[in-house]
Amino acid sequence: MFKKILIANRGEIALRVIRTCSEMGIKTVAVYSTADKESLHVKFADEAVCIGPAPSTESYLNIPNILAAAEITNCDAVHPGYGFLSENANFSRICEENNIKFIGASADMIEKMGDKATAKATMKEAGVPTIPGSEGLLDSVEQGLKIAEQIKYPVILKATAGGGGRGMRIVNGPDEFQKAWDSARQESAAAFGNDGMYLEKFVEEPRHVEIQIVGDSSGKACHLSERDCSIQRRHQKLTEEVPSPALSPELRERMGQAAIKGAEKINYEGAGTVEFLVDKHGDFYFMEMNTRIQVEHPVTEQVTGFDLIKEQIKVAAGEKITGKNYTPMAHSIECRINAEDPANDFRPSPGKITTLHIPGGPGVRVDTHVYSGYSIPPNYDSMIAKLIVTAETRIEAIKRMKRALNEFVIEGINTTIPFHIRLMDNEQFQSGHFTTKFMEEYTYDTL
Amino acid sequence: MFKKILIANRGEIALRVIRTCSEMGIKTVAVYSTADKESLHVKFADEAVCIGPAPSTESYLNIPNILAAAEITNCDAVHPGYGFLSENANFSRICEENNIKFIGASADMIEKMGDKATAKATMKEAGVPTIPGSEGLLDSVEQGLKIAEQIKYPVILKATAGGGGRGMRIVNGPDEFQKAWDSARQESAAAFGNDGMYLEKFVEEPRHVEIQIVGDSSGKACHLSERDCSIQRRHQKLTEEVPSPALSPELRERMGQAAIKGAEKINYEGAGTVEFLVDKHGDFYFMEMNTRIQVEHPVTEQVTGFDLIKEQIKVAAGEKITGKNYTPMAHSIECRINAEDPANDFRPSPGKITTLHIPGGPGVRVDTHVYSGYSIPPNYDSMIAKLIVTAETRIEAIKRMKRALNEFVIEGINTTIPFHIRLMDNEQFQSGHFTTKFMEEYTYDTL
Repeated sequence: MFKKILIANRGEIALRVIRTCSEMGIKTVAVYSTADKESLHVKFADEAVCIGPAPSTESYLNIPNILAAAEITNCDAVHPGYGFLSENANFSRICEENNIKFIGASADMIEKMGDKATAKATMKEAGVPTIPGSEGLLDSVEQGLKIAEQIKYPVILKATAGGGGRGMRIVNGPDEFQKAWDSARQESAAAFGNDGMYLEKFVEEPRHVEIQIVGDSSGKACHLSERDCSIQRRHQKLTEEVPSPALSPELRERMGQAAIKGAEKINYEGAGTVEFLVDKHGDFYFMEMNTRIQVEHPVTEQVTGFDLIKEQIKVAAGEKITGKNYTPMAHSIECRINAEDPANDFRPSPGKITTLHIPGGPGVRVDTHVYSGYSIPPNYDSMIAKLIVTAETRIEAIKRMKRALNEFVIEGINTTIPFHIRLMDNEQFQSGHFTTKFMEEYTYDTL
Repeated sequence: MFKKILIANRGEIALRVIRTCSEMGIKTVAVYSTADKESLHVKFADEAVCIGPAPSTESYLNIPNILAAAEITNCDAVHPGYGFLSENANFSRICEENNIKFIGASADMIEKMGDKATAKATMKEAGVPTIPGSEGLLDSVEQGLKIAEQIKYPVILKATAGGGGRGMRIVNGPDEFQKAWDSARQESAAAFGNDGMYLEKFVEEPRHVEIQIVGDSSGKACHLSERDCSIQRRHQKLTEEVPSPALSPELRERMGQAAIKGAEKINYEGAGTVEFLVDKHGDFYFMEMNTRIQVEHPVTEQVTGFDLIKEQIKVAAGEKITGKNYTPMAHSIECRINAEDPANDFRPSPGKITTLHIPGGPGVRVDTHVYSGYSIPPNYDSMIAKLIVTAETRIEAIKRMKRALNEFVIEGINTTIPFHIRLMDNEQFQSGHFTTKFMEEYTYDTL
């Protein structure tokens, strides 16, 4: 087992890794920028090394400085957390070249899964469902009609140069095709000076459901069930939960097996997440694979009893997984508490926390690096705490979350706590029937 | 279901009840003495009523004031917590007479289980093992020898007027009887002016293992497995855990069934605890039954997924239990954090908390009513927080507890946190082989 791990990250995830290392008897080295001198991850690590000024490029993304810190402190492994260098193939490779174990995916896997086209092709080859469509650009309406016939309507025409919804048309049947084709091409040509179009199956009422997997060096992988992350705002997850209200045990097992197939195809080693879109028919399609620990990993830990950071460390040290798959034993929800003002279009709200009271009692877990008197630097992402609750059923978990949110007192800054309280009170959220478009349908005021 | 519950208690257990009520959509009324004006249970309840000055007899034990508070605020039930009026038959009766549901045992049951001799006789009748011995005082050595032969050696001679170990003799075989009898009688006569002696089976290497039960108004009861509370100092529990390192699944089930038999014998309604001594042979003996929620109830909640306060409320409202028994799904340990100085013979250390940092992360639960800036009044018991950790195995739970204790920062007063850190490091504690005498064998310095 490793003797000393450097944590190439900050904030709550750095503290999270320290906690597991401490329980495993592994020494830890924190690194920090000058803006993070007072963060808890610095206080709770066995050693701490300043790696540069506040801008990430000069500290948390500064590979030479991080490597130097690892060498000075004699670390035999590096945990990258999420974000920053966690999916940086170059960093993974340099660590290995310097005989420092990178607790994450190999450079090769990061590259394979980091490139969307390669990732999709690899998964398709492994038999994982991907969104069907034209391979490349369409030549003509006739070709488009033929493909649409095969993959079944509704389909969506997309401009290859598109973005922000422009040059996109949903087509519900062959009679709509020509008109959609003409107007999408026109729009795209006008907006981007390029009228190239491709075609995809249109995913109806999509939900973001991801499968947590763990693989080991023998090439074996297991799944730890799903997380439903459909509640997003501008592609940023706000609330995650397990089980997904949209999954039957049968669909869970099919998605789990698909994720395992994908992971085993690439001999995936470590903890990873295979993200899918699930449509209203219960069909699912591969989106991407994240080769790192996720922000929302605690909900999985809560319903499986697993310590995912421990699992990452054990697998990196060469231990084998049991190969057992897991089904959720309870219901767990996470709310990301951000230093943002939800009533003001979620504008960032850095500053000093003057009063802090953290909720407690049964079924409540809080992962945070902040404390009363802590100043949130404006340089990094705005998440300051994760509030995770667990209960027997979804409805009980929602009630527990609301209770815990009401107990959570953070003064001196604005936070997303009031948003989450409204979300828990929202009838559509409570019903479990929502899609990734949920936050396009509501504002903070209409929730 | 109840609309509004008055909580006739203070501190963490009052807050604990508020949490569950809040999740169940039941309004709460806190009562408080003038010394507790700033306690969290007052801040988090929907309403709060001052019931008198600091001394308990004038507030938390003041039945007329509490009843008046319940009537003024229109409460339809009272939760008594633990301690104070929780096992006061008179209070239970007066509540019922005033049409306020007492969420606890009936006056009759409290009386039956509150008198040790009646409790023991009742349990014996139900077929629950009790410590065998002479029924009443011994007439002669011959009678004592005969009984000892029946209940098997070792036995213990006890002075009926005894206390503090005086007038007590362990007898390992018939040849030792006469000598022990003579010296115990002499000692007792000298110390108490009374040489009456009785005889009991001597429980070798006793452990305190209690069974959590829940019964409903149909007369049915179930058990939620055990708690091992052998780590005590002067009969005050310090640390509790489940599973007990001393129980096999077979012994757990036998003890669970015995507790159920006892509870069903008296048609026990609500949550209760049947306390046993378990000896080195795996034999167990009824000690007493507690007709209330216990301080250490969270460890049971952690390993069964049950909310015991919710269960109490539901049963009091007439709901039926499922009747399913529970075996622990994980290992959970609780440390009672007291405002005491362990290095100074556990002397109370009330005062103002100047800095507070509560541990978090996976498997950590904290139940507390204190916060940074809170002043602990000297009037009540010294427990200020319960730190509960849960992990897959006992050894992992111990490591997690140590990690969490190290994260727990309470400044301004002395606490028992350093004691618990030493306990977690103690090899005998880690081995699981210890008895209720553990804290007689160690001091804070020799742990």
